[in-house]
Amino acid sequence: MLTNNKLIKELKKNLTPDNVLETIEERYAYAQDASNLRTISNLPDAVVFVQNIEEIQKVLKTANKYKTPVICRGAGTNVVGACSTEHGGIVLNFSKMNKILEINPENMTARVQPGVVVGTLQKEVEKYGLYYPPDPSNLAVSTIGGSIAQASGGARTFKYGSTKDYVIDLLVVMADGEVLRTGSNTIKNATGYNLGSLFIGSEGTLGIVAEAVLKLIPQPEAKKVIMAYFDTIDAAVSAVNAIIEQRIYPTTLDFMDKNAIQTVEKFYPSGLLCDKDAALVIEVDGFSCAIDYQKDIVVSILNKCGASAIQYSDTDEDYDRIWTARRSSMGACAKLKPNVTTDDMIVPRSKLPELVRGTRAICEKYGLDVCMVGHVGDGSIHPQIPIDYRDEDEYNRLKQAKSEMYELTARLGGILSGEHGVGSLKRPYIAQVVNAEALNYMRKIKKTFDPNNILNPYKIF
Amino acid sequence: MLTNNKLIKELKKNLTPDNVLETIEERYAYAQDASNLRTISNLPDAVVFVQNIEEIQKVLKTANKYKTPVICRGAGTNVVGACSTEHGGIVLNFSKMNKILEINPENMTARVQPGVVVGTLQKEVEKYGLYYPPDPSNLAVSTIGGSIAQASGGARTFKYGSTKDYVIDLLVVMADGEVLRTGSNTIKNATGYNLGSLFIGSEGTLGIVAEAVLKLIPQPEAKKVIMAYFDTIDAAVSAVNAIIEQRIYPTTLDFMDKNAIQTVEKFYPSGLLCDKDAALVIEVDGFSCAIDYQKDIVVSILNKCGASAIQYSDTDEDYDRIWTARRSSMGACAKLKPNVTTDDMIVPRSKLPELVRGTRAICEKYGLDVCMVGHVGDGSIHPQIPIDYRDEDEYNRLKQAKSEMYELTARLGGILSGEHGVGSLKRPYIAQVVNAEALNYMRKIKKTFDPNNILNPYKIF
Repeated sequence: MLTNNKLIKELKKNLTPDNVLETIEERYAYAQDASNLRTISNLPDAVVFVQNIEEIQKVLKTANKYKTPVICRGAGTNVVGACSTEHGGIVLNFSKMNKILEINPENMTARVQPGVVVGTLQKEVEKYGLYYPPDPSNLAVSTIGGSIAQASGGARTFKYGSTKDYVIDLLVVMADGEVLRTGSNTIKNATGYNLGSLFIGSEGTLGIVAEAVLKLIPQPEAKKVIMAYFDTIDAAVSAVNAIIEQRIYPTTLDFMDKNAIQTVEKFYPSGLLCDKDAALVIEVDGFSCAIDYQKDIVVSILNKCGASAIQYSDTDEDYDRIWTARRSSMGACAKLKPNVTTDDMIVPRSKLPELVRGTRAICEKYGLDVCMVGHVGDGSIHPQIPIDYRDEDEYNRLKQAKSEMYELTARLGGILSGEHGVGSLKRPYIAQVVNAEALNYMRKIKKTFDPNNILNPYKIF
Repeated sequence: MLTNNKLIKELKKNLTPDNVLETIEERYAYAQDASNLRTISNLPDAVVFVQNIEEIQKVLKTANKYKTPVICRGAGTNVVGACSTEHGGIVLNFSKMNKILEINPENMTARVQPGVVVGTLQKEVEKYGLYYPPDPSNLAVSTIGGSIAQASGGARTFKYGSTKDYVIDLLVVMADGEVLRTGSNTIKNATGYNLGSLFIGSEGTLGIVAEAVLKLIPQPEAKKVIMAYFDTIDAAVSAVNAIIEQRIYPTTLDFMDKNAIQTVEKFYPSGLLCDKDAALVIEVDGFSCAIDYQKDIVVSILNKCGASAIQYSDTDEDYDRIWTARRSSMGACAKLKPNVTTDDMIVPRSKLPELVRGTRAICEKYGLDVCMVGHVGDGSIHPQIPIDYRDEDEYNRLKQAKSEMYELTARLGGILSGEHGVGSLKRPYIAQVVNAEALNYMRKIKKTFDPNNILNPYKIF
């Protein structure tokens, strides 16, 4: 506690004192993230609202002196405990570094601070006819810094890729306080090692991203969303394959299972058909003249593949209604029990039906409800499990179920996370899916970049 | 020489003896690549045609024992000396590891050995309606291994990205002979550090890629190429910006300057208009129904922006003729003098006219001819300079000109290479454009991955 007092005193001396939070209530509020961990063994020692690179450097100086962990935090929406504080430390809150520093339409780039909200950036660049495609489902609050830390994807990843495909340059404050620039403001770079990509998805364990230059693309002229219902998951996946075979490249190939459809409809009535086993949510975009062309091909394939009902958006309201329904599943699930967990397993697409069936069977075996949504195109699912953490038995069943779900994923040639990260929650399982030699080199890189182990330690591996 | 004899003996003992080349003629043939270095201080000690991972491991064992460099070689088409052998060593030739191991249409992936030729892969996947977009201009001979080593791009990078956007998994033989797998066969991965991206563009200095899984996409239904002539480079770049503002997202936004047009036309008559200062080569693709729609908008913008002539492809023959002309510039340049050098500077697109004008002025100052082609969309140019290496004075002028061109690029906020790499040719200049702290960490990574410094040493930095 003496060290803690000294630490707070030093932070307050070096930074604007009002930006350093120290009360137990404040520290409690920043001890965990949307992963909703059942227990946190330690609170952070302090929470600091940083305002610029120099302040990040000052915090690191103090952190190195006291060998205290530094945990970066955007909106705290991550679901794997990537910004939880089990080992104490200083939480760096980026909500005051939330400026869009530049939108350059000629170069099609945006330069942003890490606290910029993804959805805000998207709206701003759209004013210039530009597009920032990555769309994590919490984009209304989640930040670019968090997207970079967790290598976020979203529904549009199938066609447009994920965060890593849009970061062209980063300013990173390294563990020793030095500032590293990873690239240049150019859309290609083959000049030395690709350090930028190494930071993306490193969950704040290798350096602290202080500024990012993002690539933008021309915004598609038009879009349409199609919702198709099927009696089996296999039929839904077959339809997806048939669509791709016809050279249609949808923006989104998402799906919802029966439980997800019913739960959304129960809490947020949206006109979904509750008697179906699975629904595909397919978005096509492009030039206005090619929208109905794609829609007609997709609908014809869906019919051939046994879709039992098809809806599609003719207006912006229809479009928003379908997407709101798809994005509400986590919120709806949260109404079933006091807590809800989500997950993020990904397999080669051909293995997706097996992953969905297997995950369902595991949940049934352990008496757990599960609502499944996911990105069929990517081969990824987000099983959302409502749970009451106070129920010790249920919690233990959840843990066993999760372990089996990861085993299944590994057996199907998949991996632990496609777009959420590993954090502390999935750390115990990473060796099941990641090659031992790769883990060995990840650890070597961590040690090289952060010899004092102060940057978000004990995460990932 | 004694060591050398022992080395050869050991390699022949451990591998198929016929696959180990040792005569001076053979070694001379593999001492350099298409960078056409004027002098090579050393020949390789041996050239080994590897056939599988085990053989790569055996070579590494020998290399570690003798502390001998190992230099990977695909088709040897790289233009920066990335596979030159100034410091001797063992050249690993991958032409016997050239199998497409699997094309999986359902997962839209291809698993390949490094020696697979890019153009061959493209043709094979197109049989399934699939598309591997990266198209380095030498794709008829250049390999996937080389593309990965040098982070290759191509004319389609503007819309479709470069090699790094299509590699989802790698098997890499590390310096110590251990095999590392970077990812999984999934199109997204947020499970630990992004090691795959670190190897891409590392020019064989961090590990030896022995197998790659590539992401494929649905092949666009149709395409059309438009060639537009302008009286100034500025007018051409303005037209590019105007096209993007209209939300057209062309596959390619390439350009050729007057010298390139005239030189191509001189040696490969293609119907190009030789009195113009610059030409844009614009490809649009997508659904058949949207091709003429895009073409009409593009042509209308080109006219508004002062294009003095516009040609476009109505048939496959037209399409091939225009592209062959664009791709012939290096070959045509090579006919002007005994040697030709190319380059690869990239700046934010808004700075491209300045880069083109500045590069021309530098060449004029030093009495050098230059044909300039490039990717306007990406902000990158390839100045091709015909030269006679035997002319000491001309060679010195070239060296001075290059140095000034890189200074100019750095001043314009650009970088040394967008898609060719650094190799040994640009190594002396990397510190001009890459942040010192980034270089520092690149060196640390190199030391961590390759403590004996045997993997393509003395390249990049």
